[in-house]
Amino acid sequence: MTADNKLADGFDPVTVADRAAEQAMRQVLAERRPDDAILGEEYGKQSGSSGLTWVLDPIDGTRGFLAGTPTWGVLVALSDENGPRFGIIDQPYTGERFFGGLGQAAWRGPRGQGAMATRPTAALENALLFTTFPEVGQPQDRAGFEAVASRVKLVRYGMDCYAYALMAAGQIDLVIEAGLQAYDIQAPIAVIEAAGGIVTDWAGRPVHNGGRALAAANPELHAAALEILKGY
Amino acid sequence: MTADNKLADGFDPVTVADRAAEQAMRQVLAERRPDDAILGEEYGKQSGSSGLTWVLDPIDGTRGFLAGTPTWGVLVALSDENGPRFGIIDQPYTGERFFGGLGQAAWRGPRGQGAMATRPTAALENALLFTTFPEVGQPQDRAGFEAVASRVKLVRYGMDCYAYALMAAGQIDLVIEAGLQAYDIQAPIAVIEAAGGIVTDWAGRPVHNGGRALAAANPELHAAALEILKGY
Repeated sequence: MTADNKLADGFDPVTVADRAAEQAMRQVLAERRPDDAILGEEYGKQSGSSGLTWVLDPIDGTRGFLAGTPTWGVLVALSDENGPRFGIIDQPYTGERFFGGLGQAAWRGPRGQGAMATRPTAALENALLFTTFPEVGQPQDRAGFEAVASRVKLVRYGMDCYAYALMAAGQIDLVIEAGLQAYDIQAPIAVIEAAGGIVTDWAGRPVHNGGRALAAANPELHAAALEILKGY
Repeated sequence: MTADNKLADGFDPVTVADRAAEQAMRQVLAERRPDDAILGEEYGKQSGSSGLTWVLDPIDGTRGFLAGTPTWGVLVALSDENGPRFGIIDQPYTGERFFGGLGQAAWRGPRGQGAMATRPTAALENALLFTTFPEVGQPQDRAGFEAVASRVKLVRYGMDCYAYALMAAGQIDLVIEAGLQAYDIQAPIAVIEAAGGIVTDWAGRPVHNGGRALAAANPELHAAALEILKGY
């Protein structure tokens, strides 16, 4: 029921859009940033000499894209050897763009623009928690998620990368996901951390190479969720 | 974790917005349609003499509203003794409005406007299914939902009333929900049926007074899902 559409079908309109968007981004980078490396979901790794890498996910949330929900996005991060330094979460349908790093965290869209800051929610009992699927990942991942979910005020599903944008914008407190790739999480890391949040794996380590992610609006809430997740 | 915010807290900003929006709608109706009845989520039933009732849900999807997701909406239906004749699903954040009944099914928003028609997807195996929470309702409701979910191509969560709009707009195929009130479902019924879909309860009966709802993009798919749900 959540089979990857790319594998299930011969022709896949999502893959067509995914590839065309990544090609367009790679073309811009080839012209303007020829010395930088690129890591993209559809066309993999291209090496560079500058020490900087553009990390591209042309459609993050392909199932949401397929269904027409305004939750998927285009993710772009710029990273060095220590991880992402700048990131963009773009939602083409709503026209909103959330960006963070290099000293700023901001959004702009049809309703205006402004700086972003995460919420100060310190206790799990007051937290709004998001993930995309109830399954989260493997059964062990689901168990860890549910252990946190049972403690929070409200759980919501289905937002794809828009959940990370909502955290940076000060609307929600926690996002927990598993099975991520580097291109899924690098832009959210940069945007959320620039806005005051923290993103790590479930053991508190850097997660910019992918895996299981815990994003929290502030250090205190991060510590409270991590205390539960590290047992899974 | 999904406790109603109205009950958990003393002060509830969602209820404040809910009530103010319903008061504004009731004021317009008092001036322009003084002989019609009103049924609203926040202020209940007001009788009328015309045989017509305005059914109002000022914020459908209060949890989504609270979290800032572009999924909640304002629902307005106009019904007679047989059920809804016209409905509006309005999403104030995206600026989209979906309306149906009295011979038309259409949408308009920042990206344009146009007629709407549901999809022809006939087989469960090709269907995109939505509900808001994995729990759906009581355990028996969840079991019925999961029996259908195990047969479809893709399941997504968290869209509130926007899922019904996506069905009318030809993006998705099935919505299954439980525990609904009349004001949650009357506008979706009018909009979806005007676009070619069918909305009933899980036994195939009218659902405009609330309960467990099955919305399908077309009669064939409705019959296939109903065959499963009627066992629950």
